[in-house]
Amino acid sequence: MSKRLLPLAAMEKIMKQAGADRVSDKAKVALKDIVEEITEKISANAVKLAAHAGRKTVKEGDIKLASKQQ
Amino acid sequence: MSKRLLPLAAMEKIMKQAGADRVSDKAKVALKDIVEEITEKISANAVKLAAHAGRKTVKEGDIKLASKQQ
Repeated sequence: MSKRLLPLAAMEKIMKQAGADRVSDKAKVALKDIVEEITEKISANAVKLAAHAGRKTVKEGDIKLASKQQ
Repeated sequence: MSKRLLPLAAMEKIMKQAGADRVSDKAKVALKDIVEEITEKISANAVKLAAHAGRKTVKEGDIKLASKQQ
């Protein structure tokens, strides 16, 4: 999958900051896909938590709790 | 922290796709920060795995293994 939600350039920048000398193109795409999937899981959980609290607006606390429940 | 590596608009888009009606600004920033931190952890681990395999180039397999070791 490649949903183009997160920029590949940001993936490369983060990997370089983490100490990478060189990064293959497939590695950038793999990181993007994995990070998008994690973001989707946290988001889906946060939406459920907001609904559970009787809200239609997803708030910071929903995201923080959702990220701990991955 | 706010490193501006990942776009807030992408965070909102992913949350809307996950079913959010509305998303607070702080929730977008919280999601961005958490996802950046996860990306940094996976990247740092992938750099170590590439070095462990005697390579200077981070490859797809390093990212995939690193993401499972979070």
